[in-house]
Amino acid sequence: MKKIAVFPGSFDPITKGHESVIIRAIPLFDEIIIAVGQNPEKRAMFPLEKRLGWIKKVFMEVPAISVETYSGLTVDYCKRKGARYLLRGLRTSADFEFERSIGQTNKKLYPEIETVFLLTTPELTPINSSIVRDVYRNGGDASRFIPDGIKL
Amino acid sequence: MKKIAVFPGSFDPITKGHESVIIRAIPLFDEIIIAVGQNPEKRAMFPLEKRLGWIKKVFMEVPAISVETYSGLTVDYCKRKGARYLLRGLRTSADFEFERSIGQTNKKLYPEIETVFLLTTPELTPINSSIVRDVYRNGGDASRFIPDGIKL
Amino acid sequence: MKKIAVFPGSFDPITKGHESVIIRAIPLFDEIIIAVGQNPEKRAMFPLEKRLGWIKKVFMEVPAISVETYSGLTVDYCKRKGARYLLRGLRTSADFEFERSIGQTNKKLYPEIETVFLLTTPELTPINSSIVRDVYRNGGDASRFIPDGIKL
Amino acid sequence: MKKIAVFPGSFDPITKGHESVIIRAIPLFDEIIIAVGQNPEKRAMFPLEKRLGWIKKVFMEVPAISVETYSGLTVDYCKRKGARYLLRGLRTSADFEFERSIGQTNKKLYPEIETVFLLTTPELTPINSSIVRDVYRNGGDASRFIPDGIKL
Amino acid sequence: MKKIAVFPGSFDPITKGHESVIIRAIPLFDEIIIAVGQNPEKRAMFPLEKRLGWIKKVFMEVPAISVETYSGLTVDYCKRKGARYLLRGLRTSADFEFERSIGQTNKKLYPEIETVFLLTTPELTPINSSIVRDVYRNGGDASRFIPDGIKL
Amino acid sequence: MKKIAVFPGSFDPITKGHESVIIRAIPLFDEIIIAVGQNPEKRAMFPLEKRLGWIKKVFMEVPAISVETYSGLTVDYCKRKGARYLLRGLRTSADFEFERSIGQTNKKLYPEIETVFLLTTPELTPINSSIVRDVYRNGGDASRFIPDGIKL
Repeated sequence: MKKIAVFPGSFDPITKGHESVIIRAIPLFDEIIIAVGQNPEKRAMFPLEKRLGWIKKVFMEVPAISVETYSGLTVDYCKRKGARYLLRGLRTSADFEFERSIGQTNKKLYPEIETVFLLTTPELTPINSSIVRDVYRNGGDASRFIPDGIKL
Repeated sequence: MKKIAVFPGSFDPITKGHESVIIRAIPLFDEIIIAVGQNPEKRAMFPLEKRLGWIKKVFMEVPAISVETYSGLTVDYCKRKGARYLLRGLRTSADFEFERSIGQTNKKLYPEIETVFLLTTPELTPINSSIVRDVYRNGGDASRFIPDGIKL
Repeated sequence: MKKIAVFPGSFDPITKGHESVIIRAIPLFDEIIIAVGQNPEKRAMFPLEKRLGWIKKVFMEVPAISVETYSGLTVDYCKRKGARYLLRGLRTSADFEFERSIGQTNKKLYPEIETVFLLTTPELTPINSSIVRDVYRNGGDASRFIPDGIKL
Repeated sequence: MKKIAVFPGSFDPITKGHESVIIRAIPLFDEIIIAVGQNPEKRAMFPLEKRLGWIKKVFMEVPAISVETYSGLTVDYCKRKGARYLLRGLRTSADFEFERSIGQTNKKLYPEIETVFLLTTPELTPINSSIVRDVYRNGGDASRFIPDGIKL
Repeated sequence: MKKIAVFPGSFDPITKGHESVIIRAIPLFDEIIIAVGQNPEKRAMFPLEKRLGWIKKVFMEVPAISVETYSGLTVDYCKRKGARYLLRGLRTSADFEFERSIGQTNKKLYPEIETVFLLTTPELTPINSSIVRDVYRNGGDASRFIPDGIKL
Repeated sequence: MKKIAVFPGSFDPITKGHESVIIRAIPLFDEIIIAVGQNPEKRAMFPLEKRLGWIKKVFMEVPAISVETYSGLTVDYCKRKGARYLLRGLRTSADFEFERSIGQTNKKLYPEIETVFLLTTPELTPINSSIVRDVYRNGGDASRFIPDGIKL
């Protein structure tokens, strides 16, 4: 059976932290789907098309990685895609408590799913999308926090 | 003096975690008031009447438990009800830090109040109302996370 | 049925934090047993007799409080005493994670037991027995951290 | 070179916790600028003029302390003011994780900046502006949580 | 290239938590080596032979899993075995902070290694080897915390 | 009055993390005393002379920094040296909770003392002396974790 992982998120925008986790996870799976959730409750700063375009640009030379959008329950999307793995990065212990609740709930809803966590690298531990948005909104240079080659 | 405890919350909706904490606290108090706070700043997903109805249904055969709504400061409500105890469940260390600030502030405002904490059971530790709402909003089956016999 | 709570610990030595939690818990129970565990794996700084003597002195005028020693599993001791409650104070989130594991394990071993947590008061949050021992060992004045009227 | 520290925040409203950290930091710096950030994304409860007025009243007799507003990136403001230090108080471990991300990001954006943290005093650890607003909004007496001499 | 993972630990003794993480990780790797570290600084409660025997019994029908002992640096052992993955379970945020330091240090020492984390299941979250030893030492029934079919 | 800070620790051994915090704190104080505590309860891995020698070598060209040993209470040592500041680095939230207890206790014992915290840099966040000892004990190359120019 093909090992398919879904990396769900809003990627508003994709950061070097996301990029690093995904690249390190490539050898672990046959296919990784970066799944951009469309959550009507959570207004994104950057339009969906931009967010998708940036991710595509970052991984365009990696055939094992695809980018999609989804709505509804993440585990339902995983079922539709035949994915048995969720991929997530862990930065801080606050992250961890949140991810544990989500991960254990997902497993209750779909017992075949397994959430696989990789660590961020130390240099990238302070960075998340919310901090990148904050730097950007205030006119700072966010380019060092996002993958090379993309421009907010 | 009657031992009266108030379990304050928005119960949006009540979860199996709430139910478990309240049931285990029954022998500790003469009376437990489940107090649904009306907070104009925090928009609930489910209408107040539904939230109250669910709680009443869950505990209708327990005479020591009543359900009320309140607005204003929780400790002022406790004073009006003659309650010397606040009852809360603890799930995670993030919960704990939040509850400690609230609990210690309540004691400053009303030194006779004591917040009494019980642990969630391990199986219910990942579940809170916010996760239940998320499952519900996305079309998932939230019934396993809420008390038996109620329907969102 | 009498509501009996056991407050287990090594009390090496008893601190103002312990004292505050126990005093505030008195109205909640009919009887509180302060149970000094004899753990051959954990060498105490102060001899058992001294530790017991200090606790007795602090609570000698409170008939609902007694002091005992025990060995073996805490929940087995609770069963022998007819106690359905364990009483513990919570200071920090590190404390909480430790107490949650112990509390949930105790409930697995003895489903009738309930651990009841009270918060420390803000002023006493930094203090625990280990810090008191450290101050004492280094010749500092630990008297402000322990109950009035006792002397290390 | 003059040692200038910026204490950034929204001070909505200033609390006894802020006051205590700033007073204890005075001997460490030649000048402390309390910088009230104007963040269009975050609606304050109290109008900017009131917030500034309260801070000025609290520190009006301390020549080393001034109060200003700023918008844009905090580190850009620090550069403009010639400030090499950011001053922050630490209350809880949740605070810490948040402050670490911000502090390490600020240093990436402006390597000459150093964030200096002081601890809150134990009595003030439960208090933050959000809790003060909550007490105020619900008609409670918030005066014990804010500096003497000011009135919400 | 074969995907080999090492699950290092002292397994003093193996718990249902370890067992659950390892079983769920089987489809992710071609081979999992359970590596019992021999650490002269850390005295185990159970003799090495017993610890190895229990693990072998638990996984004897899983050809992809083997059990070995090792000494020295974990990453040096991984290099010798051709393993590019370390496998670990995550229970609590205290665990997480510890594991993050170890995992990020291992990556500094051996950049090709990746630590892969799975969550414990909620029911097993309170259990670790130290709690099992504590129950056992005090004459409690630890059998519900360790894999079926083994006996301490 | 001269601003004197004491950076207390066992420095078993000094790490790049310590070095980075101390260097960044130099402009904040007139004098920094690195104070190696002699704690008979805590056996160090490296002999005191070696630990002192390494620190001296690292900072020999910085006149504002001196190295000393001390025993007894840290705040008593600070009083003897006329130091009003304790300097500490913060890595993780587990660190923070520990440091907060120590820092708030020190202030109770000596109200004039202020603990000043700086953050580690992200790259050095995983490293502490205990991890360095672990790498060293197991024959790993610990040189990248300790200051340049010293050799364990």
